[in-house]
Amino acid sequence: MTLKQPARMSLAEQVAHQMDSMIRTGKWPVGTRIPPEPELVNQLGVSRNTVREAVRALVHTGMLETRQGDGTYVSSSSDLGAALQRRCKRSNIVETLEVRSALEQEAARLAALRRTEEDVEEMLRWLRASDAAETIEQYIDADMKLHQSIIRAADNSILTELYEHMTEAIHRSIGETVERMIFSPASERFVAHKKIHKEMVEAIIDREPEAATQAVRAHIEASQQAMLRQEQGGSA
Amino acid sequence: MTLKQPARMSLAEQVAHQMDSMIRTGKWPVGTRIPPEPELVNQLGVSRNTVREAVRALVHTGMLETRQGDGTYVSSSSDLGAALQRRCKRSNIVETLEVRSALEQEAARLAALRRTEEDVEEMLRWLRASDAAETIEQYIDADMKLHQSIIRAADNSILTELYEHMTEAIHRSIGETVERMIFSPASERFVAHKKIHKEMVEAIIDREPEAATQAVRAHIEASQQAMLRQEQGGSA
Repeated sequence: MTLKQPARMSLAEQVAHQMDSMIRTGKWPVGTRIPPEPELVNQLGVSRNTVREAVRALVHTGMLETRQGDGTYVSSSSDLGAALQRRCKRSNIVETLEVRSALEQEAARLAALRRTEEDVEEMLRWLRASDAAETIEQYIDADMKLHQSIIRAADNSILTELYEHMTEAIHRSIGETVERMIFSPASERFVAHKKIHKEMVEAIIDREPEAATQAVRAHIEASQQAMLRQEQGGSA
Repeated sequence: MTLKQPARMSLAEQVAHQMDSMIRTGKWPVGTRIPPEPELVNQLGVSRNTVREAVRALVHTGMLETRQGDGTYVSSSSDLGAALQRRCKRSNIVETLEVRSALEQEAARLAALRRTEEDVEEMLRWLRASDAAETIEQYIDADMKLHQSIIRAADNSILTELYEHMTEAIHRSIGETVERMIFSPASERFVAHKKIHKEMVEAIIDREPEAATQAVRAHIEASQQAMLRQEQGGSA
């Protein structure tokens, strides 16, 4: 038997890990200001320098953000999310859309194979809500929730996380409204969009992975073309 | 006109960013030991504490790794890669394989739409090399390079990066050899594997995105089943 050296973790690292898990578990949600330095020093029983080093480490990963003269805020729920968003920012929007499309197609395929009765109820609920929507806001909200319910039905936590972070990166780049508004009730594409949505959900309910993938791809291709046209300032 | 406060970046942050770019650009490749503290202090003209804080920030992101009594080594080429690998570690291997499969299917589809003559030459080169392979090592190498050439032909840098990091995560989890050896010349599946490879490349050359996606999915499903069977200790 050999003795192992215990893993040495500096105090600052331990504090950083604790903060990391406060953020990851949502106890400190994105957008909240974390407690001021003296309070953290007090709560954790460590020195001011240790707290500072831990905060700086999390600022470096992109999970925290220091605002001059204000305080330190939670800026991302995970280091993966922050890194992915930085990566997408360095690239063009088409690349980001393509990767998210890869994830969404596979999610639809897996959803068709795995969806539970609860998943089906959830999808139908948001499909009905998008049909019944009377304002653009209601439609956008129902549309987003419908997509999320499909991703969830695929039952793959890594896929869900990557999908959400890439969606956030896309919204930060071109604006959430641009993505959602192109299919607003006022648009010509509205009817076609609703039809594709219905086909997508039906294929998943019928457990037809190929049809589900096809419907998602049709949906994505229409969205991407419309979005890029809008981006380039052309008419819709 | 309003004056803007210049972005304040601490010295340690500036040093961390410099190290980050040394790693990202490959000047400090994965596995190298970075210069010792006194040398960095000297080169950068900053204090020992500043260097330490910068190093700790990069250790926290997973790009650097400190080995007790030895030194500090580069452990990942990007913060995204490190975060993705930590995320995959927290999850099960099936989830990781599924997400990589999503990326590979879309890569084949995009490759069929975009491949250049150089891409085709590269793919055919590694297809021939895998046919001509006389040892398992040669086959594994050609197989890996063939897959990489398909991903590259898709011409999406985010997709390529995510694919590579997930592949690394899979290899760290179940061993590179397990993934590659299941299709070694000694295996019964060898002939089928070579046939699927050929179909994959032909579909890309013929610019047939659907066929390319199908071939990749057939390939992945066969691999996953074989790998999981091997993992579970069953016979191949």
